Amino acid sequence: MANEKLSLALQGLANIEDELEACDKKVQNYRLSVLQPVYNKRNALIQDVPDFWKIVLTQHQDFADYIQVEDFKYVENISSIEIDWESIDEFQITFNFQGIEDDFPKQKVCKKFKLEYDVDKVYNPNKLKPEELEDMEEFGYWTSEPCAIQWPASYNGFNPAKIMDKSSAIGKKNYRKGMKSFFGWFKWTGLKIGKEFPNGQDLATLFTDDIYPHCLKYYTQAHRDLEDERDGTDSEVDDEEEPAFEIPEEVDEEEEEEEQEPASKKVKKG
Amino acid sequence: MANEKLSLALQGLANIEDELEACDKKVQNYRLSVLQPVYNKRNALIQDVPDFWKIVLTQHQDFADYIQVEDFKYVENISSIEIDWESIDEFQITFNFQGIEDDFPKQKVCKKFKLEYDVDKVYNPNKLKPEELEDMEEFGYWTSEPCAIQWPASYNGFNPAKIMDKSSAIGKKNYRKGMKSFFGWFKWTGLKIGKEFPNGQDLATLFTDDIYPHCLKYYTQAHRDLEDERDGTDSEVDDEEEPAFEIPEEVDEEEEEEEQEPASKKVKKG
Repeated sequence: MANEKLSLALQGLANIEDELEACDKKVQNYRLSVLQPVYNKRNALIQDVPDFWKIVLTQHQDFADYIQVEDFKYVENISSIEIDWESIDEFQITFNFQGIEDDFPKQKVCKKFKLEYDVDKVYNPNKLKPEELEDMEEFGYWTSEPCAIQWPASYNGFNPAKIMDKSSAIGKKNYRKGMKSFFGWFKWTGLKIGKEFPNGQDLATLFTDDIYPHCLKYYTQAHRDLEDERDGTDSEVDDEEEPAFEIPEEVDEEEEEEEQEPASKKVKKG
Repeated sequence: MANEKLSLALQGLANIEDELEACDKKVQNYRLSVLQPVYNKRNALIQDVPDFWKIVLTQHQDFADYIQVEDFKYVENISSIEIDWESIDEFQITFNFQGIEDDFPKQKVCKKFKLEYDVDKVYNPNKLKPEELEDMEEFGYWTSEPCAIQWPASYNGFNPAKIMDKSSAIGKKNYRKGMKSFFGWFKWTGLKIGKEFPNGQDLATLFTDDIYPHCLKYYTQAHRDLEDERDGTDSEVDDEEEPAFEIPEEVDEEEEEEEQEPASKKVKKG
């Protein structure tokens, strides 16, 4: 009798685990729906701030890890970035490039990502450890469609589409160089292990989880660092506690209170 | 003219920052409202699982850092834990103790916590660095009312309420010992820096952010470890990938799909 009660309770708790996961999904979806209109307003305002994305991206420490030195010229050319979530498992990042005369066309490029659970879609699963495949099946893994982007003329030497002989030593070397460039990321699918832009998934989540949600913070910080550099002062000293943006006069007290919401409750004290 | 446009954009972006923080608060509140009914169902089921909280708490690595060896006897005596959020800035943790004959009375104890921003409430702010006070003002800090709990008779020697002479060396030593015990945490206010249960705030958030939301996972894990110990097998080997609870037969496929929601999307791959 006691065993039957316990068994029922454990079955019930298994359902609770599912319910909690469904709650989590619901909350994430709610979060996206609440943020989207605010992000849309933000993106419109950013258009009036010269070099906003250039400043954010060229000064972002982690972003620099993903791209090559020669890519910076084209990263600086980005005039807008927008992320739209279809659901928590599907989003697209849209980049606008201003273009550079005689080298790189003005263009709008949209890269789509989708969370996948079916590991059979991976072309070379033998490159992955069994635990990696298990994690991918359980938690999902990001995939993407290769997307059409016009490469700069200056990249002709290692633009994969222009390399005729991919089997020669020099052909292979140039092919790899191209795939590792920022433009190589636009070809990334997440399905050809070790043969694509390295850690393409991590660059995508760097955009979604860090750069995009915190771009205002990064802009303020980077802008201040750049001004310090210009003034010749040490940026390390005073980049800590200034308010991110001046709060305009017309913000009333009630709104200011909302602003005090604890971003981190982990203030340690005895 | 361009400057005016920029200035308007920057003012607008300052408002956007406030809006994003308000969104975050809204999402957190939504999360609590969605989870509460599921937690209530969970708590009812847990009552039918013998020693659930004893198993979770005594096997939880981080929890052990906060309590003394002699406390375990009374931690094992906890028959239920419930957390109720009034809002994202206010919650209470309710413990039920079963009691131990001639030593420790059966009792229900409720400890309330509130996020505070006014640092003037701290009795001895001179114990804190200026940066710590600034952080507390900006992000808030948890405080709590001292709460009435009957201590075990075995703790009479260092129960602060029973120490008559707190100025003698032995009196001080026993007072400190009492304040450091699990029961000392129930007196913790967060306002007397260095004179209370150490890191009382962190123990509170360990309950809210880790133990309570993940107790099913911890129970399964701890239960398995205990069984392995009993069987004499090495628990390190196989505590990895078993499903947390058996999924009962009647769960249909649709629900199972929900369960696959990515708890972590950080699966690394090329």
